Amino acid sequence: MRKLFQRESEKAGLVPGALVHVGEASTAPVRITVMDYGAERVEERELTSVEECLPYRSSSTVTWINVDGVHRPEIVEAFGRHFGLHALLLEDIMHTGQRPKVEDFGDHMFLVLRMLYDPDETDAVFEVESEQVSIVLGPSWVLTFQESEGDIFDPVRARIRQARGRIRKMGADYLAYAIMDMVVDKYFSLLEGFGDYLEILEETLLENPTQATLAEIRDTKRALIHVRRAVWPLRDVLSMLLRGEAKLFKKPTLVFLRDLYDHMIRVVDVVETLRELTGGMLDIYMSSVSNRMNEVMKVLTIVATVFIPLTFIAGIYGMNFDTMPELHWSHGYWYVWALMLAVGLVMLVYFRVKKWL
Amino acid sequence: MRKLFQRESEKAGLVPGALVHVGEASTAPVRITVMDYGAERVEERELTSVEECLPYRSSSTVTWINVDGVHRPEIVEAFGRHFGLHALLLEDIMHTGQRPKVEDFGDHMFLVLRMLYDPDETDAVFEVESEQVSIVLGPSWVLTFQESEGDIFDPVRARIRQARGRIRKMGADYLAYAIMDMVVDKYFSLLEGFGDYLEILEETLLENPTQATLAEIRDTKRALIHVRRAVWPLRDVLSMLLRGEAKLFKKPTLVFLRDLYDHMIRVVDVVETLRELTGGMLDIYMSSVSNRMNEVMKVLTIVATVFIPLTFIAGIYGMNFDTMPELHWSHGYWYVWALMLAVGLVMLVYFRVKKWL
Amino acid sequence: MRKLFQRESEKAGLVPGALVHVGEASTAPVRITVMDYGAERVEERELTSVEECLPYRSSSTVTWINVDGVHRPEIVEAFGRHFGLHALLLEDIMHTGQRPKVEDFGDHMFLVLRMLYDPDETDAVFEVESEQVSIVLGPSWVLTFQESEGDIFDPVRARIRQARGRIRKMGADYLAYAIMDMVVDKYFSLLEGFGDYLEILEETLLENPTQATLAEIRDTKRALIHVRRAVWPLRDVLSMLLRGEAKLFKKPTLVFLRDLYDHMIRVVDVVETLRELTGGMLDIYMSSVSNRMNEVMKVLTIVATVFIPLTFIAGIYGMNFDTMPELHWSHGYWYVWALMLAVGLVMLVYFRVKKWL
Amino acid sequence: MRKLFQRESEKAGLVPGALVHVGEASTAPVRITVMDYGAERVEERELTSVEECLPYRSSSTVTWINVDGVHRPEIVEAFGRHFGLHALLLEDIMHTGQRPKVEDFGDHMFLVLRMLYDPDETDAVFEVESEQVSIVLGPSWVLTFQESEGDIFDPVRARIRQARGRIRKMGADYLAYAIMDMVVDKYFSLLEGFGDYLEILEETLLENPTQATLAEIRDTKRALIHVRRAVWPLRDVLSMLLRGEAKLFKKPTLVFLRDLYDHMIRVVDVVETLRELTGGMLDIYMSSVSNRMNEVMKVLTIVATVFIPLTFIAGIYGMNFDTMPELHWSHGYWYVWALMLAVGLVMLVYFRVKKWL
Amino acid sequence: MRKLFQRESEKAGLVPGALVHVGEASTAPVRITVMDYGAERVEERELTSVEECLPYRSSSTVTWINVDGVHRPEIVEAFGRHFGLHALLLEDIMHTGQRPKVEDFGDHMFLVLRMLYDPDETDAVFEVESEQVSIVLGPSWVLTFQESEGDIFDPVRARIRQARGRIRKMGADYLAYAIMDMVVDKYFSLLEGFGDYLEILEETLLENPTQATLAEIRDTKRALIHVRRAVWPLRDVLSMLLRGEAKLFKKPTLVFLRDLYDHMIRVVDVVETLRELTGGMLDIYMSSVSNRMNEVMKVLTIVATVFIPLTFIAGIYGMNFDTMPELHWSHGYWYVWALMLAVGLVMLVYFRVKKWL
Repeated sequence: MRKLFQRESEKAGLVPGALVHVGEASTAPVRITVMDYGAERVEERELTSVEECLPYRSSSTVTWINVDGVHRPEIVEAFGRHFGLHALLLEDIMHTGQRPKVEDFGDHMFLVLRMLYDPDETDAVFEVESEQVSIVLGPSWVLTFQESEGDIFDPVRARIRQARGRIRKMGADYLAYAIMDMVVDKYFSLLEGFGDYLEILEETLLENPTQATLAEIRDTKRALIHVRRAVWPLRDVLSMLLRGEAKLFKKPTLVFLRDLYDHMIRVVDVVETLRELTGGMLDIYMSSVSNRMNEVMKVLTIVATVFIPLTFIAGIYGMNFDTMPELHWSHGYWYVWALMLAVGLVMLVYFRVKKWL
Repeated sequence: MRKLFQRESEKAGLVPGALVHVGEASTAPVRITVMDYGAERVEERELTSVEECLPYRSSSTVTWINVDGVHRPEIVEAFGRHFGLHALLLEDIMHTGQRPKVEDFGDHMFLVLRMLYDPDETDAVFEVESEQVSIVLGPSWVLTFQESEGDIFDPVRARIRQARGRIRKMGADYLAYAIMDMVVDKYFSLLEGFGDYLEILEETLLENPTQATLAEIRDTKRALIHVRRAVWPLRDVLSMLLRGEAKLFKKPTLVFLRDLYDHMIRVVDVVETLRELTGGMLDIYMSSVSNRMNEVMKVLTIVATVFIPLTFIAGIYGMNFDTMPELHWSHGYWYVWALMLAVGLVMLVYFRVKKWL
Repeated sequence: MRKLFQRESEKAGLVPGALVHVGEASTAPVRITVMDYGAERVEERELTSVEECLPYRSSSTVTWINVDGVHRPEIVEAFGRHFGLHALLLEDIMHTGQRPKVEDFGDHMFLVLRMLYDPDETDAVFEVESEQVSIVLGPSWVLTFQESEGDIFDPVRARIRQARGRIRKMGADYLAYAIMDMVVDKYFSLLEGFGDYLEILEETLLENPTQATLAEIRDTKRALIHVRRAVWPLRDVLSMLLRGEAKLFKKPTLVFLRDLYDHMIRVVDVVETLRELTGGMLDIYMSSVSNRMNEVMKVLTIVATVFIPLTFIAGIYGMNFDTMPELHWSHGYWYVWALMLAVGLVMLVYFRVKKWL
Repeated sequence: MRKLFQRESEKAGLVPGALVHVGEASTAPVRITVMDYGAERVEERELTSVEECLPYRSSSTVTWINVDGVHRPEIVEAFGRHFGLHALLLEDIMHTGQRPKVEDFGDHMFLVLRMLYDPDETDAVFEVESEQVSIVLGPSWVLTFQESEGDIFDPVRARIRQARGRIRKMGADYLAYAIMDMVVDKYFSLLEGFGDYLEILEETLLENPTQATLAEIRDTKRALIHVRRAVWPLRDVLSMLLRGEAKLFKKPTLVFLRDLYDHMIRVVDVVETLRELTGGMLDIYMSSVSNRMNEVMKVLTIVATVFIPLTFIAGIYGMNFDTMPELHWSHGYWYVWALMLAVGLVMLVYFRVKKWL
Repeated sequence: MRKLFQRESEKAGLVPGALVHVGEASTAPVRITVMDYGAERVEERELTSVEECLPYRSSSTVTWINVDGVHRPEIVEAFGRHFGLHALLLEDIMHTGQRPKVEDFGDHMFLVLRMLYDPDETDAVFEVESEQVSIVLGPSWVLTFQESEGDIFDPVRARIRQARGRIRKMGADYLAYAIMDMVVDKYFSLLEGFGDYLEILEETLLENPTQATLAEIRDTKRALIHVRRAVWPLRDVLSMLLRGEAKLFKKPTLVFLRDLYDHMIRVVDVVETLRELTGGMLDIYMSSVSNRMNEVMKVLTIVATVFIPLTFIAGIYGMNFDTMPELHWSHGYWYVWALMLAVGLVMLVYFRVKKWL
């Protein structure tokens, strides 16, 4: 079952700001790549140590350093030292259960987003996993930290490589926007998958509800809670950025942020719609189950109420009394048959009138 | 089943502002009509190219350009170029899954509304489809974009053609208001249809609830979600316009906008009422189904409890023991009949006392 | 069934401000009465034409013109012309589906209230109908428009006729207050009737729930929605008047308005309480129905489980095997009876232990 | 059944401010007591006429006049005349269905509270009755009005009689606070009784749910509505007093008011908790009832499904065909018994596997 | 059963500020420990009387006095006297049913938190107990009061003992923060335990729902109410501190408080998620129970509907009519068997088609 929150108990009691990785344990190597670009040139490199990125830090061009893997404290700590980041910020990068949030440290900003994906898109079941994406935005540089290697930022890289793209002429704030835009775009495709899955689930609900459907409904609700917890706070983060107090976001980028906020509102809207749909599912399930039971009961009732009186009649003439005149009538047997058919027919007609048949 | 949101995944990863049509695929020709009018004169034309409308752009009279069809990027792009519209605005016009919203670009405003209609008004089932209506309001011109050709604006055109109508004396802002008023008027007739449908559905619910009713209830809820998503944000849009910050709406038009806002509040009120009604339907459905089951159970109980003891008595006297004195009584058979009738009667009286009969 | 909202579709597409009557069609004559009073004198007249009221318009005394019937546009239009009322205000008077609201036009104010009444107070069922009351308050005059002739304002008239009543010394604003006070007083008596009806319904619910009760619960909910839609917005209207921006309401009247607002809060309080009560009714209904079913099931279970084994025993000794020693025991028949009684008793004791009996 | 609101209809149509008693009819004599105290001295007297209290009105010491009974208009009116109270204030004192509220008349304040009590604390059932307590606070005097004679204020009187109590050194505002504190303290003990009752009810719910339990749940919900209507508005009243706009409450008393507000928040907290508990009761009830039905059904199923096939077998060998070879086998009878036992055992094993037994 | 609120009735009627212990009665000795530290030195002592702590009060180093046990009024009163604390503050310390809150007395602040713990962590059932932690923060000292001896603050003590820890260089406000941080850290581990328990409960719900599960669901809801009442107000307390009006919290500590607030938001988030999960449990329970009943009904229906007609047939040929030609057919017996098998098979096929088998 999907975990709804990170285990944090092992961290309880530690000094605030202690660098301990909280999240999926990992031994994968940490990959650091740097992209340095201006209107005229692009440079791409993979680094082997944090120190190699120092020359880029103060270049006039935009520098994007992406780190895949946050489980090695010494690397996170080195970035903190070289870029002057607060201990609590570094703690949040390594502690991967954060809610989306923004923190303004004056000369740099800290943004946390949650990327959502279906771990196995090929199977019928819809599941959601989430990964923390941390963004540190400086005057001319952007640091991004992902929990594991992924290809989600590739379209941004492709746009940077194009000589005449808008991104090449804009600053680091636009890059941060473009990265957030990628994460939000992912939400749409995820929610579409969710919507499709819900429609299938609803059909099952109406046509063949089983005990397993009940578990699926519950899992769906859980997945949605997961999604909401990633989506709602991000909307607030964007609305906070739009209020214009974040000085690192320049005016030309703000109009794009507003567009992103607009997308985010639509994401929230869709999530709430899905929530309303799942919310009613359990009731529909119960109605559906109750309907089937009703049908079963009807058959039982019809068979039993038709045959119980008939069996009684047969029982009567199976009695062994010395004097039972009917038994000796020459057509008695056939009369009884006629009586039984009559009783049965009356019953069936009654049921039809009652619309149970 | 009605789609609750537009597919957007194919767009994921594109540059923000890219002109890609999102929505129902269409190959219909795009029809552009222009209406240019002042207090004295009206001119109506159908254009074959965007460039033909340029002369009207800067005329002192009010110009209304209506575009039916948003699936051809080059046309939308041409309007953007000639009227100085922002790339993100053009993207929103083509991307037809927008929520109602307003954006103020200083010298022009962008308004998105959603038109609602029942695709097949003649059938018994109530369904809702929605179409995006984009309005760009400039100082003396109004651009409107519809997804497909429709006749919803004909009453406005008729009023413009009348020589002494109020609309002829007012500016472009009043025209924008009149167009929005048309869209909102449509909501009323749609909601009336919805209300009528609900009453029929409620009767079915109480009188003959079936498995199909369950699906109808679900569809109704979905349709209402659809409606709410078009209606609620529009109320906010109007309230925002009324706050008077939108300079393009002049004072004489504001009193009409307030009236429109008033209508909108009533629409929202009706939608919420419908929502409250549909919200309780599933419970009524279950109560109704449960009632019927109860009735079925009662019949079964009565028949079974009356005949089971009687059959037992008959069974007794069907036994083959050597010594069963009752069998040899001369009126034994009739005594047994009397006993059975007595038992049956006691049962029936008991049921009547219990009010099950 | 009560209509939850006015049909407005016939009006769709008309020019805003068009005077078309929306509401219950009526051919009753429109009755216009005028009451002109000051501290010293009272004059009462019934008018045959709107023009007759012109002399009163600018008199220094307070003038109250009451119009019963809003279905004749020419009359409404004449008032509009003579008192300088806005076209949209007149439209709202004739269009009788308005929500309670207040609109300030500077030298006059427009107030809409909804009067609620039970159309047939003598029958057992509680129903609610509502009628629009429009009040236009000028500096020294008050216009009131009712949908049909009614006696709701008679107590106000009686107070005006008394030589030394407070109302005679106060201005037109106090008259408007007194009229609103009448409408609100009516709510209390209506809600009391509602409360009494609910108690009866609840008893039925617990003691004898039928399919008809289900429909009654639904009707009650509908009636309450009706009431809420009249009551809630009126509270907001009063709170708006109290904020003191409405210059036509003078200070001495404001303390009475505050008292009225207080009443209104109590009305809302009662309505919400009734709502909470009705909200739980369907659940109680289902519990009650489910309880009865349970009882029915118990009887079936007891009868069936007692007699089915006994019938089986009787069946055994009804078999025709050649060798069945028990059949030839001299007291076999009585032994079987003893066995049957024993089995039956064990069953009954078991049921009693299980507390089903 | 507890009345959820006062009958007010008899009052409808009266002049605002008319002194008509609304509430429980009473013929008890109205008792007026006065307590006049300062740091040095205390004087206690019972008055026979309102006029006797006039000398105390303007004394520099604190004067507390308590009136038990509000059903005699002439007494209330006399107080109004002598202390300069507004007609609407007097109306509210006599009209005992008020919500808790505060009204500031500049030189005096009007406070309404609702005292809650269980009319019969000795019985098992929890019921709530409420009584209106009106407090008028002047610069150096406090008037309190209760609906009937009660001992709720005795602890306050006892504290006043003590020579060195804090209350003797403080002003009339502290006295008003102390009186309110008494009323709120009562809430705690009432809610504890409520909590205890709920626990007993919950046990009944889980262990032996009957139709009567259903009525008890409904009564509990009603009682809670009663409590909420007394408690919630009082919280708002206190929060309003704390905002410091009420000039009659001096600074040294404000810190005590803040403490009282704190208590009130806890009362509200407890009420909401109780509400949440009662809210779920009906669902637990239905689950519990449904569980029992399930058990009943299981027994029926087991007995019926075991014996129906056996009875069928017995029926087979009760047939009278000429040629039935089994009947003539020498051990046929015993074979049939063996078959029956086998069938019965298989059934029972099946039920055990299914965990129904 | 867990008590949802403290008994306060014994206190009703007392003077406000009276020192009476409300809570779990205790006779344990009250333990007072003091820790006095600066950047250079740490001193730890256990005190035998309150007076011994006076020298530390005005030292320039940070002094932390921890009191385990609040049931002895004379001790609390002594602290109040020596540190100049308000009577109402002392009352709140002894009265252990407080909601989390903050009160600013200018030169000292009063903070109330609730510590949550599972009284018996080893058993399967999840239970929550809470204890009040009172913190008084002065310029250079911190007083903490716990209801009973506990080890929750040991990690803070350990950090103080370390020569180079951050806490040694910070003031009393940071100490207060560190203590609150401990309490909040505890919440995380508690909620994890809660989450684990919920998953187990949900499995039980789906796989084997019994009457006991019902009680467990109710207990879980109660436990969650308990948790919410400790957690929600604390969030508000922190948000109030962050607004910067509390002058005792200096700027360097504020960034840590913001981090704590962030944790608190996550705690609230988790609590609400758990609440949503428990909220749906009763519905899942009922669905699950209803599913099982359905299964039981199906077996009954199948057995009964198959055998009832067969038994009827057997009954027919058990009748004793003189003329029953079938009885004398040579293969009559076998024909009947064939008929019975045919009827039974048709039934079974019907059930399979209906998907009941």
